[in-house]
Amino acid sequence: MTGTNTIATLGSHSSLQIMKGAKDEGFSTLLVTKSDRAWFYRQFAFIDEVIEVPSFDTFDEVETQLIEKNAILIPHGSFVAYLGMEKNKKMQVPYYGNKTVLDWESNRERQWQWFEKAGIRTPRHFSSAEEIDRPVIVKLHGAAGGRGYFYANNRVEFERKITEYNFKVNEYIIQEYIVGVPVYVHYFYSPIDNRIEIMSVDRRYETNVDSLGRIPPQDQLSLYIEPSYVVIGNSPLVLRESMLPEAQRMGEKMVSASKELMDERGLYGPFCMETIVTEEQQFYTIEVSCRIVAGTNLYTEGSPYSWLYFNEPMSTGRRIAREIKTAIRDDRLNEII
Amino acid sequence: MTGTNTIATLGSHSSLQIMKGAKDEGFSTLLVTKSDRAWFYRQFAFIDEVIEVPSFDTFDEVETQLIEKNAILIPHGSFVAYLGMEKNKKMQVPYYGNKTVLDWESNRERQWQWFEKAGIRTPRHFSSAEEIDRPVIVKLHGAAGGRGYFYANNRVEFERKITEYNFKVNEYIIQEYIVGVPVYVHYFYSPIDNRIEIMSVDRRYETNVDSLGRIPPQDQLSLYIEPSYVVIGNSPLVLRESMLPEAQRMGEKMVSASKELMDERGLYGPFCMETIVTEEQQFYTIEVSCRIVAGTNLYTEGSPYSWLYFNEPMSTGRRIAREIKTAIRDDRLNEII
Amino acid sequence: MTGTNTIATLGSHSSLQIMKGAKDEGFSTLLVTKSDRAWFYRQFAFIDEVIEVPSFDTFDEVETQLIEKNAILIPHGSFVAYLGMEKNKKMQVPYYGNKTVLDWESNRERQWQWFEKAGIRTPRHFSSAEEIDRPVIVKLHGAAGGRGYFYANNRVEFERKITEYNFKVNEYIIQEYIVGVPVYVHYFYSPIDNRIEIMSVDRRYETNVDSLGRIPPQDQLSLYIEPSYVVIGNSPLVLRESMLPEAQRMGEKMVSASKELMDERGLYGPFCMETIVTEEQQFYTIEVSCRIVAGTNLYTEGSPYSWLYFNEPMSTGRRIAREIKTAIRDDRLNEII
Amino acid sequence: MTGTNTIATLGSHSSLQIMKGAKDEGFSTLLVTKSDRAWFYRQFAFIDEVIEVPSFDTFDEVETQLIEKNAILIPHGSFVAYLGMEKNKKMQVPYYGNKTVLDWESNRERQWQWFEKAGIRTPRHFSSAEEIDRPVIVKLHGAAGGRGYFYANNRVEFERKITEYNFKVNEYIIQEYIVGVPVYVHYFYSPIDNRIEIMSVDRRYETNVDSLGRIPPQDQLSLYIEPSYVVIGNSPLVLRESMLPEAQRMGEKMVSASKELMDERGLYGPFCMETIVTEEQQFYTIEVSCRIVAGTNLYTEGSPYSWLYFNEPMSTGRRIAREIKTAIRDDRLNEII
Amino acid sequence: MTGTNTIATLGSHSSLQIMKGAKDEGFSTLLVTKSDRAWFYRQFAFIDEVIEVPSFDTFDEVETQLIEKNAILIPHGSFVAYLGMEKNKKMQVPYYGNKTVLDWESNRERQWQWFEKAGIRTPRHFSSAEEIDRPVIVKLHGAAGGRGYFYANNRVEFERKITEYNFKVNEYIIQEYIVGVPVYVHYFYSPIDNRIEIMSVDRRYETNVDSLGRIPPQDQLSLYIEPSYVVIGNSPLVLRESMLPEAQRMGEKMVSASKELMDERGLYGPFCMETIVTEEQQFYTIEVSCRIVAGTNLYTEGSPYSWLYFNEPMSTGRRIAREIKTAIRDDRLNEII
Amino acid sequence: MTGTNTIATLGSHSSLQIMKGAKDEGFSTLLVTKSDRAWFYRQFAFIDEVIEVPSFDTFDEVETQLIEKNAILIPHGSFVAYLGMEKNKKMQVPYYGNKTVLDWESNRERQWQWFEKAGIRTPRHFSSAEEIDRPVIVKLHGAAGGRGYFYANNRVEFERKITEYNFKVNEYIIQEYIVGVPVYVHYFYSPIDNRIEIMSVDRRYETNVDSLGRIPPQDQLSLYIEPSYVVIGNSPLVLRESMLPEAQRMGEKMVSASKELMDERGLYGPFCMETIVTEEQQFYTIEVSCRIVAGTNLYTEGSPYSWLYFNEPMSTGRRIAREIKTAIRDDRLNEII
Repeated sequence: MTGTNTIATLGSHSSLQIMKGAKDEGFSTLLVTKSDRAWFYRQFAFIDEVIEVPSFDTFDEVETQLIEKNAILIPHGSFVAYLGMEKNKKMQVPYYGNKTVLDWESNRERQWQWFEKAGIRTPRHFSSAEEIDRPVIVKLHGAAGGRGYFYANNRVEFERKITEYNFKVNEYIIQEYIVGVPVYVHYFYSPIDNRIEIMSVDRRYETNVDSLGRIPPQDQLSLYIEPSYVVIGNSPLVLRESMLPEAQRMGEKMVSASKELMDERGLYGPFCMETIVTEEQQFYTIEVSCRIVAGTNLYTEGSPYSWLYFNEPMSTGRRIAREIKTAIRDDRLNEII
Repeated sequence: MTGTNTIATLGSHSSLQIMKGAKDEGFSTLLVTKSDRAWFYRQFAFIDEVIEVPSFDTFDEVETQLIEKNAILIPHGSFVAYLGMEKNKKMQVPYYGNKTVLDWESNRERQWQWFEKAGIRTPRHFSSAEEIDRPVIVKLHGAAGGRGYFYANNRVEFERKITEYNFKVNEYIIQEYIVGVPVYVHYFYSPIDNRIEIMSVDRRYETNVDSLGRIPPQDQLSLYIEPSYVVIGNSPLVLRESMLPEAQRMGEKMVSASKELMDERGLYGPFCMETIVTEEQQFYTIEVSCRIVAGTNLYTEGSPYSWLYFNEPMSTGRRIAREIKTAIRDDRLNEII
Repeated sequence: MTGTNTIATLGSHSSLQIMKGAKDEGFSTLLVTKSDRAWFYRQFAFIDEVIEVPSFDTFDEVETQLIEKNAILIPHGSFVAYLGMEKNKKMQVPYYGNKTVLDWESNRERQWQWFEKAGIRTPRHFSSAEEIDRPVIVKLHGAAGGRGYFYANNRVEFERKITEYNFKVNEYIIQEYIVGVPVYVHYFYSPIDNRIEIMSVDRRYETNVDSLGRIPPQDQLSLYIEPSYVVIGNSPLVLRESMLPEAQRMGEKMVSASKELMDERGLYGPFCMETIVTEEQQFYTIEVSCRIVAGTNLYTEGSPYSWLYFNEPMSTGRRIAREIKTAIRDDRLNEII
Repeated sequence: MTGTNTIATLGSHSSLQIMKGAKDEGFSTLLVTKSDRAWFYRQFAFIDEVIEVPSFDTFDEVETQLIEKNAILIPHGSFVAYLGMEKNKKMQVPYYGNKTVLDWESNRERQWQWFEKAGIRTPRHFSSAEEIDRPVIVKLHGAAGGRGYFYANNRVEFERKITEYNFKVNEYIIQEYIVGVPVYVHYFYSPIDNRIEIMSVDRRYETNVDSLGRIPPQDQLSLYIEPSYVVIGNSPLVLRESMLPEAQRMGEKMVSASKELMDERGLYGPFCMETIVTEEQQFYTIEVSCRIVAGTNLYTEGSPYSWLYFNEPMSTGRRIAREIKTAIRDDRLNEII
Repeated sequence: MTGTNTIATLGSHSSLQIMKGAKDEGFSTLLVTKSDRAWFYRQFAFIDEVIEVPSFDTFDEVETQLIEKNAILIPHGSFVAYLGMEKNKKMQVPYYGNKTVLDWESNRERQWQWFEKAGIRTPRHFSSAEEIDRPVIVKLHGAAGGRGYFYANNRVEFERKITEYNFKVNEYIIQEYIVGVPVYVHYFYSPIDNRIEIMSVDRRYETNVDSLGRIPPQDQLSLYIEPSYVVIGNSPLVLRESMLPEAQRMGEKMVSASKELMDERGLYGPFCMETIVTEEQQFYTIEVSCRIVAGTNLYTEGSPYSWLYFNEPMSTGRRIAREIKTAIRDDRLNEII
Repeated sequence: MTGTNTIATLGSHSSLQIMKGAKDEGFSTLLVTKSDRAWFYRQFAFIDEVIEVPSFDTFDEVETQLIEKNAILIPHGSFVAYLGMEKNKKMQVPYYGNKTVLDWESNRERQWQWFEKAGIRTPRHFSSAEEIDRPVIVKLHGAAGGRGYFYANNRVEFERKITEYNFKVNEYIIQEYIVGVPVYVHYFYSPIDNRIEIMSVDRRYETNVDSLGRIPPQDQLSLYIEPSYVVIGNSPLVLRESMLPEAQRMGEKMVSASKELMDERGLYGPFCMETIVTEEQQFYTIEVSCRIVAGTNLYTEGSPYSWLYFNEPMSTGRRIAREIKTAIRDDRLNEII
């Protein structure tokens, strides 16, 4: 795979950051995007080439081009949405990341197995109504806001609502309701440098739920507002310093457990732990995302943490490119592609 | 107007950013400020000269000085508050920005006409009580928080409250109540470079409304708190990347429509779209500010977006100075003054 | 004290920032930390030496080492928690900051005396139930969240609750309840440069209180959530520019009053005013912290304000190191140690 | 039909009152009841004969007995529930009341037609979502409490909820939501004496809705209580005297309109207007019941009103018997059977 | 005044009860009513004569007739409303009751003076904002529901609301807010028999306030309901027997104090104490009505209490007639007319 | 015991009704009362003799008098309060009722044993926190309102609150929270006539809980009202006729079970089942009172039900006297004394 000097991704999610980072590290950059957004990406000087596709159904043709150009494809959060899991896994173009992880990330049961293996604190899960002894949130698989979830305080309330909401057996989970604030921790694990870095931390900005607190309770009730949780942005955050060691340990444990559960490479590159922090200052992990997340878009020029590790502007996008560059230099690219 | 090398503004709002940006671009800087704040501004090295005025009523005298110094005046959000609309428009000193836009910005009816021309999505407006078919917010012209607005769910409630609040005909508007999160998008349109840039995005920090969410509902009711919306700060934000193209299009449409509605120059320089983003990820524009906004003060050293366009620290204040510098270089200053 | 080229601190709170700032200014850096966190701090290149202690009870031994190394110790918010007030004051190692201030900071009554002397606006305090004529918050000394405080709207409610909550005489304060948003202003006062700088501003991120606003009122009530105020992070903020002069004056008044109340050195170095800003845009100061605060951790690479003063990346940690460096250069170190 | 001296009814609803009233007027009394309640009714001396039926499906056989005994059957509110509308109408036994009225009473559309004809004030009905201009209650036909109704404040809310609640077209009505207190007025119209009497007035006692007011709002929300409206009792009430003339007029108008709409006999005997009284002291009629209602069970020994008309204890049950006795005496029984 | 055998009143309020009571005691009865209600009253056999008036403005003419007929007029709660205070006091027809009392009843200040003289427990009154130390209700003189009152928890809230509601000085009272249930106690004081009787007790039925408790809190807020307190009926009540002695003492004290404050006759005949009963089982008197009240309409045939005193059906209306009959018999009529 | 013609009771609770009923049945009547209430009772003609006691501590002396007078003492709800359980049971004067029942009535555990034996539906009781699977109310033994109870929705909430409220083990019960309306059913079981009668039904009037529903939710919260449940009166009620058979069965089952559990006489005379009726029209019994209850005071002249059984005015007080009279006549007095 000598000669690789192009980094490619799909035009969405965190592609600007990935492209700029790649350019900053000296790569050629190539963006595949749907035609209606091509004009947008073309205005940035750090993107060398924009390939338009009318739709991602025809990604196969593009793939050939990417292979010809010796490009390495950097996945992000819209890959599965655009290409589908199957296409994602079967792709032949060099791909940054361990595809085995995809199966573990996309399946809720396996995620929990992973958390358990890693010794990560999570909300308790209840496998039957009888076990409910505290407030729970009941979520439909794949639901986002609206009527896709409900709270229940006890078994009897659960049973009434499960009927009322018409949730089907095996289509929902019963999870302890954790009271606390959401925190998203962005990691980078480099098998090349053999270390885990806390790249940054963010809070999401979600509509309409982040507007509720500005509406007096009587008006919320009067206006009959139901909360929704659609992420439309991110805001910066730093954590209390005394919590950083635990945060880093969490990342290490995940990486370590992944090697045992999946294969010897396990999880590497960027990933994110979605947590709730309670008043006891404990992280409860809700989900892991095994790729670059949109929250890192805040830190194009580096974050309060990445400056500590690198002493130069280092976005997560750039960190990926740096990793690839180092791997190429050390002839270890096959370990991460 | 050859020889211009001084940039001036009034001491408030975003003047630190404007002065520093001008200095970074190599201009002399001059700040006009009320005497009681002069000490504050004098401590910054990037301000070359501070002219004190006891009050802005006597701005005429200063104007002469500015003209003599060949200064270009950069307006910001406190100009109208300090000088009044009339003085603002009649000023003879070179002024960055199209004064025709002021009339369109300051008049709500014309703003809507502009939005409509541009094809911008806005909350629906109701011209009579009979049309009300959803929750509305009824606002007094020029009101800010307190009892200057109310919600109504239907015609009958509207009619009762319009009496109770004693709002007079033609002094209020009836607007669809949009549930979503506020997002402020900062643009810069450069006729010199012929492009629109998304400089940055922010959230406002408003008192007391941003404290409500931290008070349990029973205490909010018990303490009898009425919401107010006084902006006292700003926090950083990035948008979901997939929303950026639409955000940019919005800016382009506004610029384009302005040329049709006003004159061939239309709107240029910095401006801001004040929007609500709903759970369908749609922007609803509430207002346009045709000048540098205070939210850009967050990005003295550049924003996550400005780094993408410029690859050097570029605040909106500096962007203005850069534009002027380029225009001078290309002998096109008359197009933007 | 010639020969000083090592800056030391304890591993927690803002030590990363302090160490990195010291390194950026050319100092050797030394971190004292508990053994279980040493691995964490060792990964950062800007920390030259990590001394492990099993517990801070044995800090005396370390102190000797520090003295031998000619180190200057930079205190932060965890010092009192780790070492206790007494040990803190008796320490023989060179210490940045005026220890007399500690007595004034740690005693609520003296803080008020200080605020009053300085002419700082604070919530009104009521010394007896009879005086209560508005909503008050009644706080147990030293309490944090939970049942350590209550609201009362009037004398009769106060008297009922004081019994119900079983607060003992002299163990609580009765404070006017101020409705507004919290703002934390970070100052640096340099006696060497003889100026006060507004280094940055932040908002805290507290669990669980910052999650309340995202929960509809009926669910908050249904889930029976009691607010807690445990700081687990910080978010960036800029203030309305027109409020900055008053913010700076507040800092100046505190410094000035401290010289009258304590000794001729008074308060210097970093400190933070914890305020509530009301809808009249007035600061009400709740507390002063006379040391570097965790909110400055956001600004490793400088803040929107520090860029204005320094035109180079200047964290508060680095500012301390710069101050010491300048004092050494000017042979004035004794003024600040 | 000479020789009639037996009055019969079914054992439920208000049968005790009917039987006792008949006995007080000198009739023989006969009660038809399901076997499992026969023991209950047998303990009352004023019931001469109890006929047991295992179920009302076999009422036909009983009917023959009743005819043989020359009994007159007095219907009450459980007749339709027990026998069904069809059986009710086809019955051959002498029956007190005009069966034509049953069709008008049981059909909501016809009830409104009747109210309109009579000039009775009712909540406004909306035939389409577009018309909604005030709070409405949307009720499923035949629903009682629970999720069989919802409130909507405007068209948009109506449209969302109609989907959410899954109400089908033509299965619900949209009714103005009237804020006021429920009042049930019991009338007796005697064609024999040619007068309308206000026999009594009551309030219903409904579970669980009459318990809500005793639960503090935070507990109602916390306990997740949904209101239900099952009548389990009645409490006495008198009306403000100045409202009685209007109450009586309402009854007269109903009788009068019934003669025009149905047949020359129209409505006679006991009936009840179910109303809401608003703060303007106006009756809004929700429904009419064309028979003795359970609220009259309060007045076994006469009501505050019946004493005014009769100066002897006169329940509605006894009033029916008195009417029949008078009709027999005057040989006008055919007018009311 | 020998020869009196006619009792008269105006057709409203409690006139049916008065007329029936008079007839039961053997008097002739005469009702003066507005023409549009005459039909209603004519249907009752116990009213011997109905005099129609088109309006009460012409009551003077009727008065002459009443005098000619030797009638005694029985006042009730609608007298002042119909005739006005002045006409009421100047009337020449024999009138049951002490007109001096009218002045004390109609003036709030004098009522309090009376309560104080009598040693009756009332809510505390506050004469200035400074005194407020508990929740208060602030009422406009003469207001009934709607925006004619507000609650305030302390001085500051009071001051804000007094402005917001625009209540004028001297037009409102500030009263301690008593939490408890309303109880209306009906008394009869007979100077002839020299005793005080508790005739009965009632609860009012008020629209819309008695409907609130049946509406879940979220719907009350959503439907934006403001409470109103229009009495439209009454419901029966008995008091805990252990509270009756205190209830009776209250009546005695009022009578006794009236003789001291007004004249030697003082208050006699029917009157009513409007009270709130707290959880300490204490009566707080809000108002006294010095006449027959509508709550007695419940007890046409006697109340649970009147049966104890009389062992025959004794309404308050009949009690008045009995008093007059006895006075005539004993030739003491002048003491009560 | 021949010669008995005096019925006695203590002056409180329902003594007026008992005395009047005894007089109506031809007995001499004797009331023992504290001196400060004697004046009150002396005004009623149906009380032949009033014996004053300064305090009930000296009841022994009175007892001798009662025995001498051959009086039969009728207990009511204030007996235990006045005399104490021990004195009550040791009394030598002839006493109406089975004293063995007192032990079962006064002990909550035994009450439940009784209900279970009788097959009476009650709220479920939970013996440990682990069992909690629905909303529960946790009550301190002997508590009435205020902080003597709390709600919990699940085990975790229960455990937090049990600590917060500081309830001690074995001092509280955990009871299913039943949503429904309270109904009090008054029974009389006559072993002499061998039948059970439903004498009447009532609702209690409790302060302050019956005032809550009249206060809008925002004001309830704002005024910080805690519910209390002090009975200060009663209001009449009739039950849906179809529920009467079950109500009567409940009484029968209680009597029947009492004979098995206690002695061959078991429970007789007046008693009351305190129930909650749910929306399924089911009675949940909360408590049984084995004596005349204050709710019967409403029916001095008979209730809607007692008229059905007796066709003459029959209060529960009179029913007792009738029973004794019949027993004397039949020489069976020993069965009930």
